[in-house]
Amino acid sequence: MRLSTAVTAGQVAALVGGEVIGVPERTLAGVAPLDAAGPGDLAFAAGPGSVARLAETRAGAILVPSALATHVPPDATAIVVPAPVDAVQRVIAEFGADRAEWGIHPSATIGSGTRWTGRIRVGPAATIGRDVRLGAGCQIGAGSVIEDGARLGAGCRVEAQVTIHRDVVLGDRVVVRTGARIGGPGFGYVLQDGRHVRVPQLAGCRIEDDVEIGANTAVDRGATRDTVVGAGSKIDNLVQVAHNVRIGSHCIVMAQVGIAGSSVVEDEVMLAGQAGLADHLTVGKGSRVAAQVGVIGNVAPGATVSGYPARDHRSVLRQTAALARLTPLVDTLERIAQHDE
Amino acid sequence: MRLSTAVTAGQVAALVGGEVIGVPERTLAGVAPLDAAGPGDLAFAAGPGSVARLAETRAGAILVPSALATHVPPDATAIVVPAPVDAVQRVIAEFGADRAEWGIHPSATIGSGTRWTGRIRVGPAATIGRDVRLGAGCQIGAGSVIEDGARLGAGCRVEAQVTIHRDVVLGDRVVVRTGARIGGPGFGYVLQDGRHVRVPQLAGCRIEDDVEIGANTAVDRGATRDTVVGAGSKIDNLVQVAHNVRIGSHCIVMAQVGIAGSSVVEDEVMLAGQAGLADHLTVGKGSRVAAQVGVIGNVAPGATVSGYPARDHRSVLRQTAALARLTPLVDTLERIAQHDE
Amino acid sequence: MRLSTAVTAGQVAALVGGEVIGVPERTLAGVAPLDAAGPGDLAFAAGPGSVARLAETRAGAILVPSALATHVPPDATAIVVPAPVDAVQRVIAEFGADRAEWGIHPSATIGSGTRWTGRIRVGPAATIGRDVRLGAGCQIGAGSVIEDGARLGAGCRVEAQVTIHRDVVLGDRVVVRTGARIGGPGFGYVLQDGRHVRVPQLAGCRIEDDVEIGANTAVDRGATRDTVVGAGSKIDNLVQVAHNVRIGSHCIVMAQVGIAGSSVVEDEVMLAGQAGLADHLTVGKGSRVAAQVGVIGNVAPGATVSGYPARDHRSVLRQTAALARLTPLVDTLERIAQHDE
Repeated sequence: MRLSTAVTAGQVAALVGGEVIGVPERTLAGVAPLDAAGPGDLAFAAGPGSVARLAETRAGAILVPSALATHVPPDATAIVVPAPVDAVQRVIAEFGADRAEWGIHPSATIGSGTRWTGRIRVGPAATIGRDVRLGAGCQIGAGSVIEDGARLGAGCRVEAQVTIHRDVVLGDRVVVRTGARIGGPGFGYVLQDGRHVRVPQLAGCRIEDDVEIGANTAVDRGATRDTVVGAGSKIDNLVQVAHNVRIGSHCIVMAQVGIAGSSVVEDEVMLAGQAGLADHLTVGKGSRVAAQVGVIGNVAPGATVSGYPARDHRSVLRQTAALARLTPLVDTLERIAQHDE
Repeated sequence: MRLSTAVTAGQVAALVGGEVIGVPERTLAGVAPLDAAGPGDLAFAAGPGSVARLAETRAGAILVPSALATHVPPDATAIVVPAPVDAVQRVIAEFGADRAEWGIHPSATIGSGTRWTGRIRVGPAATIGRDVRLGAGCQIGAGSVIEDGARLGAGCRVEAQVTIHRDVVLGDRVVVRTGARIGGPGFGYVLQDGRHVRVPQLAGCRIEDDVEIGANTAVDRGATRDTVVGAGSKIDNLVQVAHNVRIGSHCIVMAQVGIAGSSVVEDEVMLAGQAGLADHLTVGKGSRVAAQVGVIGNVAPGATVSGYPARDHRSVLRQTAALARLTPLVDTLERIAQHDE
Repeated sequence: MRLSTAVTAGQVAALVGGEVIGVPERTLAGVAPLDAAGPGDLAFAAGPGSVARLAETRAGAILVPSALATHVPPDATAIVVPAPVDAVQRVIAEFGADRAEWGIHPSATIGSGTRWTGRIRVGPAATIGRDVRLGAGCQIGAGSVIEDGARLGAGCRVEAQVTIHRDVVLGDRVVVRTGARIGGPGFGYVLQDGRHVRVPQLAGCRIEDDVEIGANTAVDRGATRDTVVGAGSKIDNLVQVAHNVRIGSHCIVMAQVGIAGSSVVEDEVMLAGQAGLADHLTVGKGSRVAAQVGVIGNVAPGATVSGYPARDHRSVLRQTAALARLTPLVDTLERIAQHDE
């Protein structure tokens, strides 16, 4: 990623409150991963897993925690900070080339009664309905649609081609990636005379502070109570969150997970990719659900579950091992059983 | 959901042909679920499952079937109707605040030869191709793209950012939710000299009356015969329907289901979330496929299948129980088998 | 599919270098599959599987390989070519009714510094950022967004409502279908003081020549190295490709597959629908992964794997058969084991 202007290692250190070990005059024109960085790039290393990559890097300057400072090659300038990930984010926010141009593009459409605070950005061909509220620093990407009555907190970043349906509420600093659909009517029908008749989805959808929602993910609005995604939770791409679902705080929901209606995911849960949760169940605080697992009952707080149906991961491992041992015995066991009958 | 204008319980009863028990002058400014409704809201209760929620509700007026009338709290006005779900839909259609503004937004693009009947709505930044036909009352959301030659029946509602590909045919009252892609070319290739060469997808895509298609779902056009979704079927979010597939009438297809090429889903089938159907098979009328199930052969009419590969649900339950009993015996059985050899 | 102008069988043969058997003056107004074609349509047949359909077809003219020429009905004109699929593609490209209108629609937005070669097409409400490069013959569909610094080779076809994120590189003749999201930031977080903090995704995304990417599919950019899709690979709808993933050349990735971060899929691999690959593993050249399979370790080159966790397909079949035989014996085996203890 190119920076909008070249900076020195010393300027970076001043911005992020870091200590320079090496040449502070080193000029940096971009930010790149350790493996791809050249002498004009700033890189970063966060944990002990980066030691081997540090030995090989050609980066000009590297943001590191103090524990890694001795691993920075002698040709590079080290910038020592407590939290390198935070520091590189600050550098990108300050000097990154894709800093938003503030203002409302003339091809955007803004409905009556819509209000905002401070400076905002609305991209080309975006459509904002009536009576929408946008907090200071909100960015609405090209082609996105914000329906009537939606309320966005401060610093939300809605990427291109997103839909925020009517009356949806986003907290502060919510990030919604391209193609995500937030607050559409859920999949609720009753059977009347052989026809499926839609049940009105009258409740809302609330996304709390610091949530991120991935590309092409769908979060439906509630039928009988609001669908909620709790503060700090991160949802990956192509995830389905059905009506009335409540996801707690600081959860991780990986790609292609599906959560059926009215289920509750408590705080700090991790749902791995392609896992599916049936409706009306509770996944307890701090539990972990393995990839592709089918959860059809409650999961205890702190549990790790796998298999289908989901159960304690160790018992799944035991059963898998036992069945692998029984398979080659099948001829013998069949013969014994027949003799015994 | 706020109403566009406050109405009385009596006005609601007159609209839906209901009987008022209580105060007909009760003023209602919104429609809300039983749990969230306040004294100024209309709510509804459809089945016996709502009895507990009726006892707790603070709603000002409630649409109920006669069997539930005695459960309406004394402070609320009951409006007794045969089908509360239909009634609340009529109230929303008549008084809802998000009633469409009819007409074509000046930022929309309409191709030559495109014709429509009666009043229609086309949102901002929508693109409608050449020789398209739109029935009376069609609504095309912001940013949607309707390609050349597509034909939509009366009263279709295409939400924002949808794609309807060339020559696709929608019946009457079809609802297509945000981000759905209808009639794109299917995934068909032949291997020639080590390269995958695309097979032209020459057939079409037909969506019959009263079908609903969920957010970010993809329904591909046919290669050798039209892809068809039958009347009254409802498809949830993030579903994949491949080329040449035929889905019958009044089916329910839940989120993240995948149906591979040329398979046939007969009438009144229920496919639960994340289920997958292999290609060129038939799922018989009225059958039910459980969540996450992999269907790799035909399913008999009326069957309920689960497991991988899909088979009769009761035999799956029997096998699961049997294997759970065998697992703790593995040491003993292994010893017995070794003695016996 | 209607043609933009009626052509004769002789004209088609001249275009594709074919030999006419029958009436070269036959007039053709459209292209259709064998089953749906009428006397005014051109159809094609590619392999021996088409013999039965040839016997029934009413097509006016048919592109066939020489091995199928004797199966063309006497009323139809045969046009014999070595590769009928290629031939019909050429006919559609030359005479198809949906030939693009070249030029930039006045409602599109083009950023400063963006350059292109030869003629291109940019549809209504499309947004192209700054410093983008578009090769000759590129087509950008309605409502698509190409972010700053992206580079597209010659002859790319980006359908409607696609996102190409900043600095993404597409080779020549890449096809991206509606709603696909290419190069968005991957799902990478570190836990700091109980909060998930985003790790900057600094690497890029490169899609090589002749790749096709399906509707609503998401391919994330890299965190530490570029995400790559190799030449000639074809990806279906609703697929998730995470950060740092490398997909080789001439692979087939079917609908709803998920590939987790940093995994490597070597050349000529086939991943069937809804399969899931865990992170940091390698799927060897020419291997095949069955539908819905969960791959949690490396797959050997040339292997065919199924089951969960994925393992050799024949051993899965053996285990499935063995367990089906053990299930009915469970009562007897349990009794024997208890006696023996």
